[in-house]
Amino acid sequence: MVMSILLKNCRYVLTQDAKRRILKNTHIYVEEDKVAEIGKVKSADDVIDCSRFAVSPGFVNSHTHIGSTIMRGYADDLPFFEWLDRIWEREHRLTEKEIALGSQIACLEMIKSGITSFVDMYPYEDGTVRKVQESGLRAFLSWPVLDKDKTTQKGDSLKNAERFLKTWKDKERITPLVGPHAVYSCEKELLVKAKKLADKHRTLAHIHVAETRKELSDCLKKNKKRVVEYLDSIGFLEKNVLAAHCSWLTKGEIRTLAQRGVKVSACPVSNAKLGTGGVIPIPEMLEDKVLVTLGTDAATSNNSLNMFETMKFCSLLLKSQRWDAAIVKAQDVFDFATVNGARALGLNAGSIERGKLADLVLMDLEHIGMLPMNNLLSNLVYSASPAVVDTVIVGGKFVMREKEILTMDERTVK
Amino acid sequence: MVMSILLKNCRYVLTQDAKRRILKNTHIYVEEDKVAEIGKVKSADDVIDCSRFAVSPGFVNSHTHIGSTIMRGYADDLPFFEWLDRIWEREHRLTEKEIALGSQIACLEMIKSGITSFVDMYPYEDGTVRKVQESGLRAFLSWPVLDKDKTTQKGDSLKNAERFLKTWKDKERITPLVGPHAVYSCEKELLVKAKKLADKHRTLAHIHVAETRKELSDCLKKNKKRVVEYLDSIGFLEKNVLAAHCSWLTKGEIRTLAQRGVKVSACPVSNAKLGTGGVIPIPEMLEDKVLVTLGTDAATSNNSLNMFETMKFCSLLLKSQRWDAAIVKAQDVFDFATVNGARALGLNAGSIERGKLADLVLMDLEHIGMLPMNNLLSNLVYSASPAVVDTVIVGGKFVMREKEILTMDERTVK
Repeated sequence: MVMSILLKNCRYVLTQDAKRRILKNTHIYVEEDKVAEIGKVKSADDVIDCSRFAVSPGFVNSHTHIGSTIMRGYADDLPFFEWLDRIWEREHRLTEKEIALGSQIACLEMIKSGITSFVDMYPYEDGTVRKVQESGLRAFLSWPVLDKDKTTQKGDSLKNAERFLKTWKDKERITPLVGPHAVYSCEKELLVKAKKLADKHRTLAHIHVAETRKELSDCLKKNKKRVVEYLDSIGFLEKNVLAAHCSWLTKGEIRTLAQRGVKVSACPVSNAKLGTGGVIPIPEMLEDKVLVTLGTDAATSNNSLNMFETMKFCSLLLKSQRWDAAIVKAQDVFDFATVNGARALGLNAGSIERGKLADLVLMDLEHIGMLPMNNLLSNLVYSASPAVVDTVIVGGKFVMREKEILTMDERTVK
Repeated sequence: MVMSILLKNCRYVLTQDAKRRILKNTHIYVEEDKVAEIGKVKSADDVIDCSRFAVSPGFVNSHTHIGSTIMRGYADDLPFFEWLDRIWEREHRLTEKEIALGSQIACLEMIKSGITSFVDMYPYEDGTVRKVQESGLRAFLSWPVLDKDKTTQKGDSLKNAERFLKTWKDKERITPLVGPHAVYSCEKELLVKAKKLADKHRTLAHIHVAETRKELSDCLKKNKKRVVEYLDSIGFLEKNVLAAHCSWLTKGEIRTLAQRGVKVSACPVSNAKLGTGGVIPIPEMLEDKVLVTLGTDAATSNNSLNMFETMKFCSLLLKSQRWDAAIVKAQDVFDFATVNGARALGLNAGSIERGKLADLVLMDLEHIGMLPMNNLLSNLVYSASPAVVDTVIVGGKFVMREKEILTMDERTVK
């Protein structure tokens, strides 16, 4: 085991600190799982010449469903509810082995995209969680909680969730969360209980919110309230809530999210691909200081787990919708994908600072798509692709080095 | 020189023939510059085992400005006209050497994205054209024609264009076009003359059309006609016109494009990034049988030359705008990027058939982002990135093989 690493002569370091400083020609010294020094050359067990690299905090993918990667491309170009029916029908027939394989493919794909942490929602067999552990990624795994008639889980999903929380608590790199699925798949009582379960175990409640117009219109019919209004009326919205999608919101609902300290996971690629309309109102969220993070969503609805694409798409979709090239800039989406993601998860990462977890990605600045270098951040957000990711370090351990995955045997995954 | 190539045991061949057949486990025999046989094993000078590949027609990038790649990331996240001012100001100071280097970077990036042909618009010194020739790509180079007060070209841009047409006529892989820039940069007389010059030399007139709302509104003020109406009224619109952007159109104008046989180059990523609004009305174009092709536009406005991204973005932007996941499907955008592009250019390529030019790309199906394979076309359009491109053949010659560029020394490009 390597105990210390020196990233020597980094051409750039995107610190993502409070001042968003970009350092030039410097060194990062990693000891155990943390960044111990910046700027000093120290002797280390492992030294990497970083003169062709920009070192970036690893990306945080704040919403996905890794097991479903086994269904990538399975039901594309279909109207939303036709898609959902086909995915759910197939999902109910998935074997444990298929889910584990899908999860493994997803982990590999995420590593190659520079992702070091992700938030997931899927029913997990132990075998799947072990594959995730093996990958070396930091995983926030949400056990899905749904009404009995909406799930194929054996037994009570709330009890299953609690068992899952207990089993995987305090395990290395795994954090179990509670995943009350959505307002259309959980009755009020279940939502409240799931939230209380998350509170009791001091973890996050991870929920889909206002993804489609139908979700909004059904909620209005049933509860006489919009989705965020309804969730707030039952006391669901607090600091430990991670709300995915949040497309169909009013300004009032955005203020509520801000006041309650709810974290948002924007999934613009998935929303566009499923034709859900209602582009997530990120400019208004930023105005109200809502913490915005970025998710790829699933390979069934995206269909890639590529954070470069998600950053660029997020910015461009809003520029297109608002007729304003100056809206949601490169620095904004890079923040969503790094420092904001970490803050949402209470993770001591997302920026490169002394004492922070060493979740680091080495980006190849000599890759042809990164030339010339007029603006580092622009190139990373608008020009880069997974092809620029050379090396990925999670908690001071190499997960990928010089393009080679070290934690899993990639050739066996087919 | 290799005179014949056998692509043996291709896992899939995306023929893009009239029936859009996808062949399994077959062989492609290339002789000189053409596909000579499909399905037969023949002895060849060079044999490639293609059992892990899908063989696809090379992509046709129908609108770009390669020289400006030297300004990639130079003026991002700015309002459109502030961006344009900064780019033009910088452009006027570019040296011949910078333009040649930008062009070289662009060619390398395009090869790695599976592009085998592209349509460009930029003033070309001979050195730049030779770099393009060296790359091995098929290039359709449009000499920009602008009013005297809009250009920094020395001399008359129409005369320069004619000289360019004569110099580069009938040269290998280079086709010179005429590039009347736009209605806002060319007076009526110049537009008419440029079009006649293209007619005289039996080549294409390549023009920007209705890219921004300002272009439309200025045209309405000056000519009392919308952009396509105006161009039609001066007899500009005929079969040999390639119109880039075409965002701000009415249904009537789309019908005009269809009736005149004008070819459209859609550049959705660039339009979104510049916040031009007015998403190109592709569904209506398809209804009227307008030939739609895809362009990346420039690295100053995109900022990558990645046809996978452009295909996905094109589909997703329209799905998002129209609230319809079933609109502009994977097969549609794959057609735009291959067979339609070739047809627009009168190029005997864009599909894999006996007698067609061997412009072929070997896509790695074992790349992690392509697993599992539920739907080949979905994976290519919605999941793939340049990382899946293994080998690129243009006119029966290897341009990239097993990820190594063979036509240029990539390491010298910095």
